[in-house]
Amino acid sequence: MMRTATYFFIFLNLSLALFEEPAVYPLPFLATSVLEVLCLLVFLGRLTHFAKVTLHNVFWKDTKNICIMVAILLSLTDLAIYGVLRLYGVRSIRWSRIVRPIFLINFAESRQIRRAFRSIRNTLPEITYVFLLFMFSLLMFSLMALKLFGERNLQTAEGLPYFRNYLEIVFDLYVLVTTANSPDVMMPAFDFSSWYALFFIAFVIINTYIFMSLFLAVVYNNYKKHLKNEIRKLAYMKRRKMIEAFNLLKEQEGEQFVVREARWKQLVKLVAPDTSNSHRELLLRISDDKQKGFVDKKSFVQLADLLNIQVVTLKIRRHPLARWAPALYGSAPSRLLRGLVRHRVFVWTYDAIILINAVFIALDEESPYISYAEWVFLALYIVEILLKVYTYEPREFFGKTQFWNWFDTLIIFAALTATILNATLKSTMKYNSQQILDIVFILRVLRLIRIVDSIQRFRVIMNTLINIVPTMLTFGGLTLVVYCVFAIIGMELFHGKIQYFPANSNAPHALECGNPALKDSLFARGKYCKNNFNNFASSFIVLMELTVVNQWHVFANGFANVTAQPAKLYFIAFHIVMVIIIVNIFVSFILEAFFVEYSLEKSEVETAIEQKIQELGMGVQEDELQHEQLLDNMESAEHELEGEGGAKAQSKGLVFKIASKRYRTVDALLQRMFEAEIPLEDEGPSFEEILNLSPTSAVPRSPSSESGA
Amino acid sequence: MMRTATYFFIFLNLSLALFEEPAVYPLPFLATSVLEVLCLLVFLGRLTHFAKVTLHNVFWKDTKNICIMVAILLSLTDLAIYGVLRLYGVRSIRWSRIVRPIFLINFAESRQIRRAFRSIRNTLPEITYVFLLFMFSLLMFSLMALKLFGERNLQTAEGLPYFRNYLEIVFDLYVLVTTANSPDVMMPAFDFSSWYALFFIAFVIINTYIFMSLFLAVVYNNYKKHLKNEIRKLAYMKRRKMIEAFNLLKEQEGEQFVVREARWKQLVKLVAPDTSNSHRELLLRISDDKQKGFVDKKSFVQLADLLNIQVVTLKIRRHPLARWAPALYGSAPSRLLRGLVRHRVFVWTYDAIILINAVFIALDEESPYISYAEWVFLALYIVEILLKVYTYEPREFFGKTQFWNWFDTLIIFAALTATILNATLKSTMKYNSQQILDIVFILRVLRLIRIVDSIQRFRVIMNTLINIVPTMLTFGGLTLVVYCVFAIIGMELFHGKIQYFPANSNAPHALECGNPALKDSLFARGKYCKNNFNNFASSFIVLMELTVVNQWHVFANGFANVTAQPAKLYFIAFHIVMVIIIVNIFVSFILEAFFVEYSLEKSEVETAIEQKIQELGMGVQEDELQHEQLLDNMESAEHELEGEGGAKAQSKGLVFKIASKRYRTVDALLQRMFEAEIPLEDEGPSFEEILNLSPTSAVPRSPSSESGA
Repeated sequence: MMRTATYFFIFLNLSLALFEEPAVYPLPFLATSVLEVLCLLVFLGRLTHFAKVTLHNVFWKDTKNICIMVAILLSLTDLAIYGVLRLYGVRSIRWSRIVRPIFLINFAESRQIRRAFRSIRNTLPEITYVFLLFMFSLLMFSLMALKLFGERNLQTAEGLPYFRNYLEIVFDLYVLVTTANSPDVMMPAFDFSSWYALFFIAFVIINTYIFMSLFLAVVYNNYKKHLKNEIRKLAYMKRRKMIEAFNLLKEQEGEQFVVREARWKQLVKLVAPDTSNSHRELLLRISDDKQKGFVDKKSFVQLADLLNIQVVTLKIRRHPLARWAPALYGSAPSRLLRGLVRHRVFVWTYDAIILINAVFIALDEESPYISYAEWVFLALYIVEILLKVYTYEPREFFGKTQFWNWFDTLIIFAALTATILNATLKSTMKYNSQQILDIVFILRVLRLIRIVDSIQRFRVIMNTLINIVPTMLTFGGLTLVVYCVFAIIGMELFHGKIQYFPANSNAPHALECGNPALKDSLFARGKYCKNNFNNFASSFIVLMELTVVNQWHVFANGFANVTAQPAKLYFIAFHIVMVIIIVNIFVSFILEAFFVEYSLEKSEVETAIEQKIQELGMGVQEDELQHEQLLDNMESAEHELEGEGGAKAQSKGLVFKIASKRYRTVDALLQRMFEAEIPLEDEGPSFEEILNLSPTSAVPRSPSSESGA
Repeated sequence: MMRTATYFFIFLNLSLALFEEPAVYPLPFLATSVLEVLCLLVFLGRLTHFAKVTLHNVFWKDTKNICIMVAILLSLTDLAIYGVLRLYGVRSIRWSRIVRPIFLINFAESRQIRRAFRSIRNTLPEITYVFLLFMFSLLMFSLMALKLFGERNLQTAEGLPYFRNYLEIVFDLYVLVTTANSPDVMMPAFDFSSWYALFFIAFVIINTYIFMSLFLAVVYNNYKKHLKNEIRKLAYMKRRKMIEAFNLLKEQEGEQFVVREARWKQLVKLVAPDTSNSHRELLLRISDDKQKGFVDKKSFVQLADLLNIQVVTLKIRRHPLARWAPALYGSAPSRLLRGLVRHRVFVWTYDAIILINAVFIALDEESPYISYAEWVFLALYIVEILLKVYTYEPREFFGKTQFWNWFDTLIIFAALTATILNATLKSTMKYNSQQILDIVFILRVLRLIRIVDSIQRFRVIMNTLINIVPTMLTFGGLTLVVYCVFAIIGMELFHGKIQYFPANSNAPHALECGNPALKDSLFARGKYCKNNFNNFASSFIVLMELTVVNQWHVFANGFANVTAQPAKLYFIAFHIVMVIIIVNIFVSFILEAFFVEYSLEKSEVETAIEQKIQELGMGVQEDELQHEQLLDNMESAEHELEGEGGAKAQSKGLVFKIASKRYRTVDALLQRMFEAEIPLEDEGPSFEEILNLSPTSAVPRSPSSESGA
C-alpha cells in the first residue's frame, strides 16, 4: 500500500505539469502549489521513514537519499521564490520542475529504472569516444561538402542557398545521418553532376550504416556487461544471506551442521506464508532427499531458489455444475457437448468465424444487414465463452496465468456493453456517440487477435513479446523521465510561438501557424501547426514524433525560425539522448530478451524439483497432456486433468506442475542464466567484497572459500 | 591468375547492363552480345575445368555447378531469341539478364557470398513467421484506421482523401512502419482530435520499435547460429584431415606412432614453401618440445593452426643509409634528428599542424595567402614522410601491415600530383579543371584523418572498423546481387517514364519530369526527376535511396502514378529484401564483429608459440617496446628494434613477434573462437558425419573417438 501511495504521489507530482501554466486543463496557481507541497511532504515523510528503518551511516551514504533531499529543497525554494515574485507581478521561470523526475528515479520502489540509468551512466564513456569519432567524421565530410559544393551557387528545392555555410552543412549532414532528409539534401548536387552522388553514398555508408551500428554495438555490449554484473552481485548477495541464515539456525548432527525439519518448516512458513502445506511438503522432500529429518547446508542454501520456482498446485477440482447438478452435467448430451468443445474442430470453427467477422468489419457499415451481423457475431463469441466455462472448471479457466482467456472475455464483454450502450443512445436519443462508436470499432478489431494464438509458431513469438512487457515498462519509465525534462525545457523555449488554427479559421497568419516567420517554410506547408510546445500533452506528442526521427529537421528549422537558430541544439540534444542512447538500449534489451528466451533450458534446481514431483507420482506427464489437448490449446493444460490425469493422482487430490515458461520475466531468466554459471559449492565473496565489486569488473576477485562450519 | 580472370569476366558480364539498352554508354547490340557470348564461353570453360579436376559424382551433386549450367543455357537461349526477334523488328524483353548475378554467387571463388546467401536462406523460415505476424498486426491496425478515420471526410496536406481505401491504408501504414511518412500520415487525424495521436503512438511502438527489433533479433540469432555451424564444420574438417595426414606419415617409435623430424620438415616445406628456415625451426621447436627428433600425434594435428598464425620475422635490417654512408648517418646531427623524429613531441607538432591546416581549408580559397599556405602544408607533410623514412627502415616503414604509413604517403603524393597538375593547367592554359580541383579538395580533407590515429581510444575503434572491411566487401557483393536484379526489373518496368530536364529547360512538362501524370505530386515538387530507372547507373542510385528508406513512399507513389498502382509492390518487395533482410544481416555482422573483437583473448596455440619464442630468447618484450615507442606510435613497433631490441637478439639477427591483432580478419577470429571450444583431444566426427551435419543442428552427434593408431 505504501508503495502504491508513493507511486501515486510521484505521478501526481509529474502530472502537475498538465495543470500549471502553460496548461492543458488550467488550475489556479494556488491549487497546483498546494498539491506540489503536499507531494513534497509525502516524499519527505517517506524519506524519514527510510531513515528510521535503515542504519544511520547506510542512509547518509546512499546518494539517492541525498538526491531526494536536494530535490525537495530545490522545489520548495523555487516554489517560494516564484510565488513571491508572482505576488509582485513579476513572471519568472519555474526551473525546479525539471527535477521532478528525480523522485521517480530515486525512490527505492523503482529499482529497475535506477538500474537502467546506472547502465546508461556506465555506458557513457564508451559512447562518448564513438560519438567523438563520429563527430570527427561528420565535420570532415562537412568540410569536403563545403569545398565541393559551396561555390557552385546551387539551390535547394525550396530555392534556398545550398551548402554555403559550414555550420548549416554540419546540421544538414547530421540530419542525413538520421536519414530524415535523405534524397532532398543530395538532389541539387546530383542534378549538377551524377558523380556527386558518390559523396553522399560514401557518407551514408560510413555514418548512417557503420557508425549507427557501432553505437548499437557499444550500447548493447555495455548493457549486457553491466546487467550481468548487477545480477551476479544479486546472486552472490542471495547466497551469502542464505549462508548467514544457515549459520543462525544450524544445529550439530553427527559430523555436520544441519537445520532440523521443524525449524525449517517454521522458517518456510515465516518467509512464504501463502505456500500451501502440500507445496511445503514437496519442498522438504526435495531439500531432505533421504528423509533424514534435517536439511544440510547445501540444500538449505538452495531454499531461496526453490521458493522462487513457481509450482502450480493443480487441484483436481470438479466442475461446480458437476457438484450441484451431477445428473444433468454427467448426462449423455452434456458429455457430448463437452466433448465437442474440447475437440479441435471447435477451435477451427471459431477461427473461421473470426475470419468471416474480419470481412464483415471491413465491409460498409451502412447496410442494415451488416449491423445485424455484428449482433450475430457478438452472440457467437459469448456462446463460445459460455461453452468453455461449461466445459472447463471456471476458477481454472480464469486462472492467473490464463492470459488469453482473460483477454477474450474482457474484450467481448466490453464490446457487448459498448454496443448495447450505443444502440440504446441511438434508439432513444437519436444520437450517435462518436467516442463509444470508436471504442466499439477498436474492440471489434481486437477480437481478431485471438486467431494468432491458434497457430503454434505465432504463439511462440507472442509469448516472447508478452514476456518482454514488464521490462518494457522500465523503458516506459526511462522515456517518461527524458520526455518530462525535455517537455518542460521545450515549453519554456517555444511556448506560444506556434499556434494551431482549425482549417476554416480566418485568423491572421492561420496558414503560417500564427507566426509570419514561418511563411513558406516546410513546417507550415506540411501543416504541422498542431505540433507545438504549448502544453504538456502537445509537447509529449512532438517529442514522440522526434523520437521517430522522420522530418525532425523540419521541426528543428521551424522552431529555430520562430525563436533563434541555436534552438536547433535542443533538437540535436534530444536526438542524441533519445535515439542514440535510449532507443539503442531498448533495442539491446529486446535482442537480449529474445536470445535468452530462445536459448535457456530448464535450470538445475527446476530439474530437481521436477524429478522429485515425478518420483512422488504427483506429476503431470507432458505426453499424457499432449495426447488429449493437442497442439491447439496447450494453454488450457491445467483444466484437462479432470478426466484423465485424475486416474493416477486423484488419490491425493492434487498434482504439481512447474509453471510454464511463458509467464517468467526476463529478469528472472537472466538471473538464472548467471546462476547456472556459479557452481553450487562456491559461496561467493563476502558482503564487503560484494558491495565493493566495481560495476565494470566482469569477474569478481577470487571468491573466498570458507568451509562449512 | 585464373581467379582474377574469372572475377574479371563476372564483372564484365554484370557491367554489360551499362551498355545495353537502356544504356549509360550505348554500344551496338552486336558488340554487347559478342561480349556476353565471350563471358559465357569463359564460364563454360571454367566449369569444364572444374569438371576435370573434381570427381565425377561430386561435380554432378554440387548444385552450384548445375546452377551455372542452367544460367549459361538460359542466357544463350534468351540472347538467341532476342537477336532473331530483333532481326524481324520485334522488341522483346531481355529477361535472362536477371540470372547474371548467379555467376557471381556460384563460382567457387566467392565462397563468402555463398555463405551469406546460405545464411539468408536458412534464416528465411523464421523471418517468414515474424513477418506474417507483423503483416497480421499491420492489417489489423489498417482495419482499425479504416473504421476510425474512414468516414470523417478528412484530407491530407496535399488535399487528397485521407484513409478511405483499405489497400491504401495498408500501404500508408506500412510506410509509417519505416517511419518515412511519420508525422504527415498522422496530422489530419491529429488535427481532428488530439486523442487519435494515441492510435499512431501505439502503432509505432508495436510495429516500428518492437517488430523491427524482433526482425533484427531473429536475423542476428540465426546468423550467429549458422555462422558458428559453418565454422564448426570447417574446424572438424581440418582436424580430420590432419589426422589422415598423420596416419599416412606415421612411423612407430617405441609405444606410439610419430612423424619423424625430416619428414615433418619436408611436409612443411611442401605445404608452406614461403616459410623462412628460421620460422620453420621455431615451429619444430614448438611441435617437438623436448627435442626428441619426432613429432607426436597431438602436436602434429596442431600444425595447421601453427602455420595459420602469422609470425612476423623481424629482421634486424640496418637502414640503407647506414650501410651506404655510415659516417654521415651515424654522425651527431643525424642521431639528434632521428631522436627528434622518434620523440613524441614530433607527433604532437604534426597533430597541431593538421589542426591549423583544417582551419585553413575551411577559410576562403580566394585569398592568395591561403593558396600559398596550401603549398606550405603540402611541403610540411612531405618533409614529415621523408624524415620518417630517414629515421626508420624504409622496407619496414612500407611493410604490408603499415596501413597508416601507406595511407599517408598515398594521400600526400596524390595531393602533390593533383595540385601541381592543377597549377600547371591554371598557369599555362588559364583553365581550372573542376574534376582535378574536386580531387584536390577531397585529398586535402582526407589528410586530416591522420589525427585520429594519434589518440589511443580512437585507434581501437578504427582498428575494429578496418578489420571489418574485408567482410564488409562480402555484403557489398550481396548488395550488388540484389541491386542488379532489382535494377534490371526496374528498368523494364519504369524505363523512360520519368525524364530529367535541367533547371532552365523549356521542354513541355519539364517541372513534372516530362510526365503530366506527376503534376502536383510530391515527386515532382521534391524535384526528384533525376531519380529514375532510365539507365543502370541511375537505377543503382535510386535503389540506394530506397535502401536509406526516407521518402521511399514518394518514389513509390511517383512511379505508381506514371505506370500503374501495383508498381508499389516493386518498392515494397525491395524494402523487404533489402532493408528487413540484408541491412539487418549487415547490422548483425557489425555487432558480431565488434563483440568478437572486444572479447577475444589470445588463443591457446598462440600462447604456446609466444612462450616458445620467449624461451628461445628471440622474443620482443612488449614492455621493452612500449618503453621506447610510447603510446602514440605503437604502429611502428617493428622498426623500433634496430636500436634496443638488438642488444639481446642481434646475435641471431632476427626476432619473432606474433602479428598484432589489428590485421586479423573477423572470420579468422570467429574460427579461433569456436576452436577454443573443442578440446584438443577431441578428434571430431568422421568425414561422412561432418558432411551430413545439418546446418541447423547446433551440436553435432557425439563425435566418434577413434584411437591414435
